[in-house]
Amino acid sequence: MENCTLGMEDIRQAADRLGGSIVRTPVLASPMLDAAAGCRVFVKAEPLQLTGSFKIRGAMNKMLTLGAERLRRGVITYSAGNHGQGVAAGARLLGCPAVIVLPDTAPAIKVENCRWWGAEIVFYSPDTQDRETVTVAIARERGMTFIPPFDDIDVMAGQGTLGLELVEQLAKRNVVPDVVLVNCSGGGLASGVITAIKHAFAHTQCYVVEPTGFEKMGRSLRSGRPEHNPTVPKTLMDAISGPVVGALPLRTLLTHDVRGISVTDDEALQAVAHAFRWLKLVVEPGGAAGLAAVLARKVALDGKRVALVCSGGNVDPAVYARALTHS
Amino acid sequence: MENCTLGMEDIRQAADRLGGSIVRTPVLASPMLDAAAGCRVFVKAEPLQLTGSFKIRGAMNKMLTLGAERLRRGVITYSAGNHGQGVAAGARLLGCPAVIVLPDTAPAIKVENCRWWGAEIVFYSPDTQDRETVTVAIARERGMTFIPPFDDIDVMAGQGTLGLELVEQLAKRNVVPDVVLVNCSGGGLASGVITAIKHAFAHTQCYVVEPTGFEKMGRSLRSGRPEHNPTVPKTLMDAISGPVVGALPLRTLLTHDVRGISVTDDEALQAVAHAFRWLKLVVEPGGAAGLAAVLARKVALDGKRVALVCSGGNVDPAVYARALTHS
Repeated sequence: MENCTLGMEDIRQAADRLGGSIVRTPVLASPMLDAAAGCRVFVKAEPLQLTGSFKIRGAMNKMLTLGAERLRRGVITYSAGNHGQGVAAGARLLGCPAVIVLPDTAPAIKVENCRWWGAEIVFYSPDTQDRETVTVAIARERGMTFIPPFDDIDVMAGQGTLGLELVEQLAKRNVVPDVVLVNCSGGGLASGVITAIKHAFAHTQCYVVEPTGFEKMGRSLRSGRPEHNPTVPKTLMDAISGPVVGALPLRTLLTHDVRGISVTDDEALQAVAHAFRWLKLVVEPGGAAGLAAVLARKVALDGKRVALVCSGGNVDPAVYARALTHS
Repeated sequence: MENCTLGMEDIRQAADRLGGSIVRTPVLASPMLDAAAGCRVFVKAEPLQLTGSFKIRGAMNKMLTLGAERLRRGVITYSAGNHGQGVAAGARLLGCPAVIVLPDTAPAIKVENCRWWGAEIVFYSPDTQDRETVTVAIARERGMTFIPPFDDIDVMAGQGTLGLELVEQLAKRNVVPDVVLVNCSGGGLASGVITAIKHAFAHTQCYVVEPTGFEKMGRSLRSGRPEHNPTVPKTLMDAISGPVVGALPLRTLLTHDVRGISVTDDEALQAVAHAFRWLKLVVEPGGAAGLAAVLARKVALDGKRVALVCSGGNVDPAVYARALTHS
């Protein structure tokens, strides 16, 4: 089977394609954060990315592989969250049409954000319609290309450019990380980043971090096949609480000796507050899972060099205020 | 009189001295922010600096001019805010003793922050003692060097390194700014940054931004001599609400056709909320004054290229939560 795991060459090509159209986000560090964590922490600050999360990397890389004719007909997806915004913004930058399929119950702010970038919103009724069916019908009718959120080598490669930058930024500081932690839901980001990290630093131990009660990737890594969340509990870490892992991300992660750990909502909120105080970086709860795992000492990291990804900063002001005043 | 205005060579030497010991903070931009402001905005993100504000640049540059013997005896200052933290952190990095003179009424968090960096805190009673007198007495007794907050060429040159970085970062994007705005109290930051900007971009119009009711630099620029605030009103922009301007910063600013504008607390809080939403950057109210002036359209900027400094992010969580939920 051709191209069934992500390779370093896919990531390098994605970096060439994306070029200067996305932000090379900085790596942040704080002596105070290090003291609280008991280790040296290097934070890849992806809230500073265009659209406030890493998602535009993968979405835009996928679009750039389509060729002029398919691009002209446009792209479509069904996420109201960070991926939807990434697709909408990528389409705007490339000058192609985009449709975002949203439930008619979607919060106004998410609808506004997608519209701001120029995307057309098509609503469906979640009580009577299935979003995949609606999306496929529109895609066929208009000749649009579906941009998957994670289970796609080009999307994974785009997210991997974050890992490539992190490797270069750590190398510039003469840091070889002992441990790398990446937030994980479907696995697009984790597979991309960990592929880049393991290529450069073969002995670095990599972890995926999930919300407690949503450890689908942790279980998949143990069973060797895609597991899903049996129920849909609630979590403040909405960005990493999807129901399924991607088959391609899982296959890639299985080649790299990756372990799964999890954090609670309270631990995530405390990490959000720590990022506020010590990094001056706005991070959403799901984007702070890796930082939460370090601060809550989910694995033994004393004295080690630890790199992690803060993956997004699109957080409701009321949730953010709660994190600051209650932890 | 030797060295009575800041020159470009002072700033270049400061940049060489500081080298890699401080953070080269990124310049952030957001299409959504641009749309709200009606112009292209480039934000120098100094909350991402070590200690959460620009102050370590000037404090540390001053220390690096002292020579080994004076450095060994240590440094002293009397600010509990961003300058105090900058002095404490700079002393820690250089391995020299530091004393911070604080009123016995200082908030615990500010005392903790200075102590965290290893500084010794000496308390005085503001009812019966004068902070300058206390500071001078300790400095004489222990042979320590006073690090002034702004009225000193070496301190101004250190703050100017921020301007030098901004010039390089704008040039890399092929941007010549039409307008630059810098938050201002004593004038150390403003004189440093504007000297670097005007050297590179002679036609850029520069503004200092102050809290409404605290326009001491605006008045000083008009009268040509150091004015002070006749009363001490209250403002949330505590970082830029000191009573006096520096003679040396004023003299430097008078050579550069600088204008003064002001913003209210409400405008500053709204700018804090905009930086949260669009830049994912934590900014304190006083650090957001320049951004507030742009968003409140205090000067005509339509379609222009505007660079500004977000100068610090050390904000009380309750004040920050208020900015997010009330604007």
